[in-house]
Amino acid sequence: MSPNGFNGIISSNGNGHVAPLHLQAPPAPTPSVNSLKASNLFFSPAPPGTDRSGTRGRYMLSIPWSKQSGWGQPKIGPLETINLDPLAGALQYAVSCFEGMKCYKGEDGQLRLFRPDKNFDRLKRSAWRIGLPYDWDNSELLDLLVKLVALEAPIVPNEDGTNLYIRPTLIDASSSFGLREDGLASEAMLYVATGINVGTKIYPSADGKGLKLNTSSDFIRAWPGGTGSYKLGANYGESKRPVHIAKQPGYAMSLWLHGDRDYISEAGGMNIFVIKQASDGFLEFVTMSLANGIVLPGVTRSSIIELLTNHASGIKDFPTVGMPKNIRVVERDIPMQEIIDGIADGFFGCGTGVVVVSIAEITYANNVYHIPYNPLVRLIRDTMTALQRGKIESEWSYKVPAWSGPGLESTEEVIIT
Amino acid sequence: MSPNGFNGIISSNGNGHVAPLHLQAPPAPTPSVNSLKASNLFFSPAPPGTDRSGTRGRYMLSIPWSKQSGWGQPKIGPLETINLDPLAGALQYAVSCFEGMKCYKGEDGQLRLFRPDKNFDRLKRSAWRIGLPYDWDNSELLDLLVKLVALEAPIVPNEDGTNLYIRPTLIDASSSFGLREDGLASEAMLYVATGINVGTKIYPSADGKGLKLNTSSDFIRAWPGGTGSYKLGANYGESKRPVHIAKQPGYAMSLWLHGDRDYISEAGGMNIFVIKQASDGFLEFVTMSLANGIVLPGVTRSSIIELLTNHASGIKDFPTVGMPKNIRVVERDIPMQEIIDGIADGFFGCGTGVVVVSIAEITYANNVYHIPYNPLVRLIRDTMTALQRGKIESEWSYKVPAWSGPGLESTEEVIIT
Repeated sequence: MSPNGFNGIISSNGNGHVAPLHLQAPPAPTPSVNSLKASNLFFSPAPPGTDRSGTRGRYMLSIPWSKQSGWGQPKIGPLETINLDPLAGALQYAVSCFEGMKCYKGEDGQLRLFRPDKNFDRLKRSAWRIGLPYDWDNSELLDLLVKLVALEAPIVPNEDGTNLYIRPTLIDASSSFGLREDGLASEAMLYVATGINVGTKIYPSADGKGLKLNTSSDFIRAWPGGTGSYKLGANYGESKRPVHIAKQPGYAMSLWLHGDRDYISEAGGMNIFVIKQASDGFLEFVTMSLANGIVLPGVTRSSIIELLTNHASGIKDFPTVGMPKNIRVVERDIPMQEIIDGIADGFFGCGTGVVVVSIAEITYANNVYHIPYNPLVRLIRDTMTALQRGKIESEWSYKVPAWSGPGLESTEEVIIT
Repeated sequence: MSPNGFNGIISSNGNGHVAPLHLQAPPAPTPSVNSLKASNLFFSPAPPGTDRSGTRGRYMLSIPWSKQSGWGQPKIGPLETINLDPLAGALQYAVSCFEGMKCYKGEDGQLRLFRPDKNFDRLKRSAWRIGLPYDWDNSELLDLLVKLVALEAPIVPNEDGTNLYIRPTLIDASSSFGLREDGLASEAMLYVATGINVGTKIYPSADGKGLKLNTSSDFIRAWPGGTGSYKLGANYGESKRPVHIAKQPGYAMSLWLHGDRDYISEAGGMNIFVIKQASDGFLEFVTMSLANGIVLPGVTRSSIIELLTNHASGIKDFPTVGMPKNIRVVERDIPMQEIIDGIADGFFGCGTGVVVVSIAEITYANNVYHIPYNPLVRLIRDTMTALQRGKIESEWSYKVPAWSGPGLESTEEVIIT
């Protein structure tokens, strides 16, 4: 795996020039005094009678870090508050980054993660960008994360659309006024909280109805030279909150536009694909280039690109029957005018949250543009879901080993796996 | 005072068009169920023997808010941690905004704030932008803030360059996964922490040496349609942290550039003024326009503009002798080429942190450009400092009434004012 968490996308921008910084792997990290060690785990069982009926995971994983002593003892214990200095960088200067991951329970009861290394690598990139530590060994972090996830096994449902949402978060816990000589946090906290997706549909399914989007060109999500390609808290707060910006009544979310031709970047927190019949007979899957650094390099995005390009080149057939052979993936910016001109033969968003969702309607400059429903969106969605849930076996699916914390059996909170 | 905290700047952009959203006052807020009431203050004295030797204020002010019950009881008590849900909007999505204010102790022992309403109004704009409550009455908040400040009176030094730095902060304390229907926080916390500036010089004084800046055009601080004109945590973290971005060895900070002509926006966290001899004999003070929303509308910036324009128009003389009469303030974008061409007859940064500081040297595209030192920078700095410290009386200076918390006299921690 590429150390920056990309999936061969870099090569599409390679033409002898040095890649923009946001496409480069972070420099080798300075090793912490003490490295992150899963074997140091301290486990604190939830007290007897802990409520398991809510939609929040009952446990959390937390690992402190300091410049002076490196990674401290990892702890898995009951969900609790994060206690911070009022002047902590996370609160004052938005020095925080996160990942969104999902754990799926198959019909066989097996819990599976989807390409966790991709998320860990992206978290490293984000951390590097804002001066947080990023020197952990992914396998150590994975070892801890799967234990946390295994503890929640009894409360993870196994119907389609349900899962355990996992939120790794890395924040600057050190007090920060003004400028720091080295620009780095002196204390940090890596923690992981979870939540149950019980299958309530925030987003309509990709059954042909599709989402309605409005567009935002007054409010711009990201810009070249900014942080749009990093998963920083700072990219999300301002874009999600104000009613009139993020989400207008009747719309699922906003399509973010940028530049003098109102190029499409993302929709809400999703990457975007436009399906387009090309004049040479090929079906094109057009998605925004990562080259200008304003688009998040999504794990779902890169997985779909990989499946489609492997299929097109004959390296490996698309895992599900029905994908035509004459397809190609194109990474380029798409101006709104192309949507207005009706070039789209399909339009979908993708991301860990939605997986894959069809887009049916876009409102732009007071006009409504309808996008034809393309059944390939459903095919891609079903394929991704099958890969994630283990209905299709693949190396992308990571099986979570069973684990019941030591001492847990002595409480009422017996874990039955 | 204009409800959006601007100082007549809006009119300079008025030419019949509707002002960009970031130049408009926020819409009238929805009143909270319970309004913010200073009379509800709960005061908790610091325990006997609390250390007063550090550079942190010993007390903090905190006021909880919830959608359900509005503003809760304000509390002034010993500095303590902020305890948040791991999924709080402040930690996950950078839903946080802040202000920087200073309290100065005069030679007479009197504590003074500088235009606190300006900061409170700007905090309201920031809060509105990210879906936090902004319906408080500034006079209620001021009433609480001055009590906090008064408690620290004994530890505030009164030499030039020293002060009590005040950090009002407003954060989203509510758990947030995914999209919210109304885009608004359901719980928030407004708190104020303080720190002593003991006169250690982070920035060199404006005595002719001046700062050295490098320039950043690979990394862009803000962009039209973004949040550069709001004081959000999200604008600061990514810009301050990485070594190679924010602060290179030998440089005080980075000059932020943007656009195809590398226009100057800010330097570090300061607004910028260029002094330029115009061909018609006038001396121009050129500062970046607020029109495109990428520059923070600084309180120091607007105060300097007001002093200079009043002086030029004859409304009110500059408070200190020595300012020429034939001057004008120009708000426009300045491309780096003008600096290269040597148009600058002086260059300074301003802000609450630095007050006013001369800039002597700018490194751009591997060339070093020297800026002549202009003694008017020192004049402006001394004038602003005199206004802030009460050496020149003005309506901008707010005298902090003495206050010793009830019950405090019963501890060792007796406040002597």
